[in-house]
Amino acid sequence: MSTPLITLTTDFGTGSPYVAALKGVILTINPAVHLVDISNAIAPQNVRQAALALEAVIPYFPSGTIHVAVVDPGVGTLRRIVYACMEGQHFIAPDNGILGRLADRWPPSMMIEIREPAYWQRDVSSTFHGRDIMAPVAAHLSLGLAPERLGPPCDQLVQLDWPPARTMANRIEGEVVAVDSFGNLVTNITRQMLASAPRDESVTVRCDEHETVGIFNAYADQPPMTLIALVGSNDQLELAVVNDSARTMLGVGEGAKVVVSW
Amino acid sequence: MSTPLITLTTDFGTGSPYVAALKGVILTINPAVHLVDISNAIAPQNVRQAALALEAVIPYFPSGTIHVAVVDPGVGTLRRIVYACMEGQHFIAPDNGILGRLADRWPPSMMIEIREPAYWQRDVSSTFHGRDIMAPVAAHLSLGLAPERLGPPCDQLVQLDWPPARTMANRIEGEVVAVDSFGNLVTNITRQMLASAPRDESVTVRCDEHETVGIFNAYADQPPMTLIALVGSNDQLELAVVNDSARTMLGVGEGAKVVVSW
Amino acid sequence: MSTPLITLTTDFGTGSPYVAALKGVILTINPAVHLVDISNAIAPQNVRQAALALEAVIPYFPSGTIHVAVVDPGVGTLRRIVYACMEGQHFIAPDNGILGRLADRWPPSMMIEIREPAYWQRDVSSTFHGRDIMAPVAAHLSLGLAPERLGPPCDQLVQLDWPPARTMANRIEGEVVAVDSFGNLVTNITRQMLASAPRDESVTVRCDEHETVGIFNAYADQPPMTLIALVGSNDQLELAVVNDSARTMLGVGEGAKVVVSW
Repeated sequence: MSTPLITLTTDFGTGSPYVAALKGVILTINPAVHLVDISNAIAPQNVRQAALALEAVIPYFPSGTIHVAVVDPGVGTLRRIVYACMEGQHFIAPDNGILGRLADRWPPSMMIEIREPAYWQRDVSSTFHGRDIMAPVAAHLSLGLAPERLGPPCDQLVQLDWPPARTMANRIEGEVVAVDSFGNLVTNITRQMLASAPRDESVTVRCDEHETVGIFNAYADQPPMTLIALVGSNDQLELAVVNDSARTMLGVGEGAKVVVSW
Repeated sequence: MSTPLITLTTDFGTGSPYVAALKGVILTINPAVHLVDISNAIAPQNVRQAALALEAVIPYFPSGTIHVAVVDPGVGTLRRIVYACMEGQHFIAPDNGILGRLADRWPPSMMIEIREPAYWQRDVSSTFHGRDIMAPVAAHLSLGLAPERLGPPCDQLVQLDWPPARTMANRIEGEVVAVDSFGNLVTNITRQMLASAPRDESVTVRCDEHETVGIFNAYADQPPMTLIALVGSNDQLELAVVNDSARTMLGVGEGAKVVVSW
Repeated sequence: MSTPLITLTTDFGTGSPYVAALKGVILTINPAVHLVDISNAIAPQNVRQAALALEAVIPYFPSGTIHVAVVDPGVGTLRRIVYACMEGQHFIAPDNGILGRLADRWPPSMMIEIREPAYWQRDVSSTFHGRDIMAPVAAHLSLGLAPERLGPPCDQLVQLDWPPARTMANRIEGEVVAVDSFGNLVTNITRQMLASAPRDESVTVRCDEHETVGIFNAYADQPPMTLIALVGSNDQLELAVVNDSARTMLGVGEGAKVVVSW
């Protein structure tokens, strides 16, 4: 059997001992597990950012991976903690929209409400269920525990509203949904939506009051400091400034309107 | 035998190649070891922050874990490098107060001054004993080396002054000792000290000129942007602003006075 | 056989899901590999910084380590992706100067242009060859694939211009080439170049309009807030402010001229 793999996605901040506490709990229960950080730099309480980070990497993780997502502003209240199996991978998170987003794209084969304390830390704090419930549950799953043992099935996940992109005859209207570490502005306009759009100079991409012509393949297809549009590595249209930050240069971020027209 | 586990706590900065050098040294000596970063984002030279980070996570790490703490402004001077065994876990650090803090809470079963160069890098720089002494010593311990081989026993660790909280009849006076990644203000007032304090609106928690009433269980027990007091996941009283940063909102940090009265 | 080890050096930013995507790809192909981040905090497009980070840690990694360096502003253009074997370690990177720097110091025993798509992801994006080409190639190497299978040999790597230090009779002129996480200014003046220089107060080190006398062994050899010169842990002259940041205090960074005279 291959080494079990547990990933972490949190808003604890890189270098936070809270992340180390999760890892200590997991390695106490299963010292043989591999741990990978998806990101611990999710903005505090930003459930959407956590969902998008996970969505971007799930296609690249092996079947059987166990993902723990702890962005949990409702910790200690009545919000549920859930387990879901999607694409042969396992997910544990508060039911606050993170898994709902993923379930929309990858319908779960199983959903469980995590209620059985036998697999939790003995003492459960009211402010850190990541450490006291989610981490130990993940570790027990990595040892082969059947998910059914975690609690009763549940049949629905909390869904957030996600801004839809609108496709018209010669026009697509969307918005910036994420900004990456290079300052590239990633939109909710997909490669598929762009199938009928030209890529040459007859297409215009507008963001806020900024405009660029054409949709390119590579960042280096234009000279440094040029604003360009291209379809990025997750099949989403993005705006970039070559060798610089579009976020800084354009002064826009998440929520900025983007219009493709031809 | 389970996979040996070595953790790192440093002020090198996240993404510093200095951290990678420690890991390379360790994996050269023992390629089978698991490495976990407690934090590499300790503020430069901040021995106290390193001690508190370790203190917060030790209860969650398995017996046998080897912790290396390199916050070492005195590197290359006569300060000692020490090994201590506490709670069945192993610690290697410069003797500058980090381990003294931990030893106060978890009395060591063994303390050794690290002096035997057989387990160091062949060439020892005068500025990076983390890489040249502490990392290789940790790796050798992970292979089963008896700690007694590292040097002579020592019987005392350097102790820093830590601000005490003062408990009175209807009042506890403490201070902020740490600020977490959410901007929550963590104090030196413990759950135990609060045992006789009420939790309802008859208790007032004051920090600087700011005041809040009641001690809550969960961040979400109050509406967003509200200042609340609660006992956090490490059993310390903390002040938080719901879904925001108390550090920013209150404009205070480590050392700020906190008074609980009823 | 010991656990195979793959390291990552990228400009994706700490906490970027792009880094996690690389790791997912690698662990899908070889779940038993150990992953170590050299740094994911290389400044965007800063090929030089990536080269220096790798150069600083290579001597501390075991033979057989596979290093993947993804600082790749030319992704999707005609720039080559190359494999090189140096010091018994394996390197995969775009041919943009990173490996050229290393090859100057450690002449490669083998160089290959990576062209054989059998070891890549099935779908290769035009903007993320780190995930789609370099990561899977590294994973296949970690399983024992012979590097010759990756493509045809190549016999030259792209070389960047690196500022040379000039050695004269009683004087060495160099410059700051890196700033570490403490704000220490690391220069291109090596221990070897300094062999004939005195270490006592007859030597003066000047950086910009700032000046300090003597070359010390340890940061703590002078009182806090003092500007000192010392030979750092990678045998390069550096300027430091004791317990503070020389970068901030002196207001200089990479490229600042440094003159040692006696």
